[in-house]
Amino acid sequence: MTDDEQFMTHCLELAQRAWGRTSPNPLVGAVIVREGQVVGEGFHPQAGQPHAEVFALSEAGDLAQGATLYVNLEPCNHFGRTPPCTEAVICAGIQRVVVGMVDPDPRVAGGGITRLQQAGIEVVTGVLVEACQELNEGFLHRVRTGRAFGILKYAMTLDGKIASSTGDSFWITGEPARQWVYHLRSGCDAVITGGSTVRRDNPALTTHGLTTHSPLRVVLSRSLDLPLDAKIWQVDEHCRTLLITSPQVEPPPLLIKQLLSLGVEVLELDPCNPLTVLAELADQGCNTVLWECGGNLAAQAIQAGAVQKVVAFIAPKIIGGVGAPTPVGDVGLTRIQAALSLNRCRWETIGQDWLIQGYLPEVVPATSD
Amino acid sequence: MTDDEQFMTHCLELAQRAWGRTSPNPLVGAVIVREGQVVGEGFHPQAGQPHAEVFALSEAGDLAQGATLYVNLEPCNHFGRTPPCTEAVICAGIQRVVVGMVDPDPRVAGGGITRLQQAGIEVVTGVLVEACQELNEGFLHRVRTGRAFGILKYAMTLDGKIASSTGDSFWITGEPARQWVYHLRSGCDAVITGGSTVRRDNPALTTHGLTTHSPLRVVLSRSLDLPLDAKIWQVDEHCRTLLITSPQVEPPPLLIKQLLSLGVEVLELDPCNPLTVLAELADQGCNTVLWECGGNLAAQAIQAGAVQKVVAFIAPKIIGGVGAPTPVGDVGLTRIQAALSLNRCRWETIGQDWLIQGYLPEVVPATSD
Repeated sequence: MTDDEQFMTHCLELAQRAWGRTSPNPLVGAVIVREGQVVGEGFHPQAGQPHAEVFALSEAGDLAQGATLYVNLEPCNHFGRTPPCTEAVICAGIQRVVVGMVDPDPRVAGGGITRLQQAGIEVVTGVLVEACQELNEGFLHRVRTGRAFGILKYAMTLDGKIASSTGDSFWITGEPARQWVYHLRSGCDAVITGGSTVRRDNPALTTHGLTTHSPLRVVLSRSLDLPLDAKIWQVDEHCRTLLITSPQVEPPPLLIKQLLSLGVEVLELDPCNPLTVLAELADQGCNTVLWECGGNLAAQAIQAGAVQKVVAFIAPKIIGGVGAPTPVGDVGLTRIQAALSLNRCRWETIGQDWLIQGYLPEVVPATSD
Repeated sequence: MTDDEQFMTHCLELAQRAWGRTSPNPLVGAVIVREGQVVGEGFHPQAGQPHAEVFALSEAGDLAQGATLYVNLEPCNHFGRTPPCTEAVICAGIQRVVVGMVDPDPRVAGGGITRLQQAGIEVVTGVLVEACQELNEGFLHRVRTGRAFGILKYAMTLDGKIASSTGDSFWITGEPARQWVYHLRSGCDAVITGGSTVRRDNPALTTHGLTTHSPLRVVLSRSLDLPLDAKIWQVDEHCRTLLITSPQVEPPPLLIKQLLSLGVEVLELDPCNPLTVLAELADQGCNTVLWECGGNLAAQAIQAGAVQKVVAFIAPKIIGGVGAPTPVGDVGLTRIQAALSLNRCRWETIGQDWLIQGYLPEVVPATSD
């Protein structure tokens, strides 16, 4: 690993300290290095707060003069909620800037790098570019498509079941895997589930105390066949719930009134489908959403192109069952040769369970919205 | 790793050279070491041929005098098809014997070790005992239970399907995984499948040229609803097929006559179930059998206690399908807490696919036979 890669790795570590708290902004870390020594570092803690470069420059002070700045994403060149970072970098006398990846945000998109070069600063780009892209895959996908990045998460037995034939699913995986999921949730901006999961499993979909920040919980239900005493309706300032449904007739059903009185937010979407939901959530500032749902909604989301990444836990146990539910329902494929092959797969053990992560091939969504 | 463990590892490597060819005998390798140098080695090549110790002693000649013999299984002390190894070891002047594990065969069962000790030879036992047990898990199970050791092998997608909703299953896994399965088959004494797999997939269940030795192919069918043109009925001296069915009325159905004329062997078992099949195959000299069948027969085999080990391939692809078949049908479990947890799990990647192996908890079979 080169020196540049080592300091970029440090940027990525710094960036991750704000895991789950920067949306709609990306995760960014910055390091200032002078004669091989780190003289300043920082990360972007939250939207509306200063960018990573500002913290690093502030810590470096006069030592920034002639130093190298490392940052995993191209410095911005525009006035947003904060002034452009490029000007601060130039003013501080930075001599060399090492950028992980170009910012695809149309307000930046190479403009930051150009501005720095025009000011006589040497700029290196594309250092650990794949790791930088992966760190901000949600942000990048949203900027590119206008929709939140979808992660489908499920846990199944070694014989492919997400529950027994009677619907029991507590617990497929062990405690370490469940803790890992709470951490994953804490890094996502929303968790989407369907009415059938609310009825059957009654999940809380919180981070179970792992963080004060919980993702927005989204229940997707067109039928509104939902129990009023579900855990997911227990909301507070740290843990919101949004019911997304199709347009309802007037006056609104009693259930909606009751949920509103509990503090649940309700949104009618037309059409109401996985893609419109991801576009709506992107508009609300979500970069990354987690699908934690049954096989039918998962299949709809996959078929619509609303799942970019699959996170699958496999437990070393056999439950059996001809009619026991499996992770993905009908996606319209009949030939194995046409199956959706995952890319960039990764595999690790979490406690007694196995975790497989991979990316679905890009589906060009049918234009229904 | 101690010296004893290193030489025992070499015994295990030698033993494996006869992979799939020794049944009903175990796989055994022997090494003779004098002053740190290997002066003789051998393995048991096939039932009816000399034991591993005989080959090693023969190679060592006079150098066996005062040397150490390593062998993964206790030397035999009885006249079988060959004279007892203990006498040959004593006559050769071996001073020390290191044994991987005691032979549970009631004709040996510690008697070999006792005989050696009585002759003044120092005997060490239990070196790499777990690896020695695993190498001969089929033999050990058969000696202990009177039934062949059952391995359930299947390949499924990451969403838990062994075929698409229309039954297509070519191919779930990639070429390296399929080669691995041919190697596994070549180490087994029989491969069992059911009528539905013959009808649906028409498998050959051979080693596809990997070895001249193919396991006995067993088709288990009570209904005899079987196509006459299936690949599995193509038999020759290296590749036999046995149809096991329940007792038929006289005169035998036409299909049986036709299969017999093709060279297929036919056996009526009463009762005809997974356990009686494994007992029958043990009587025919099988140590290890492979279940390569659909979810229903797999479930019957598991429930009966006829599956000791699970070998599951997982392909990094999603096929979807509400009714798509899964690896294991009903085994009578409704609570996830009651799921069968696999022990001693191991995983590795084979090409693009993942391979998980583990052992089922011991099921005490209902006494139906």
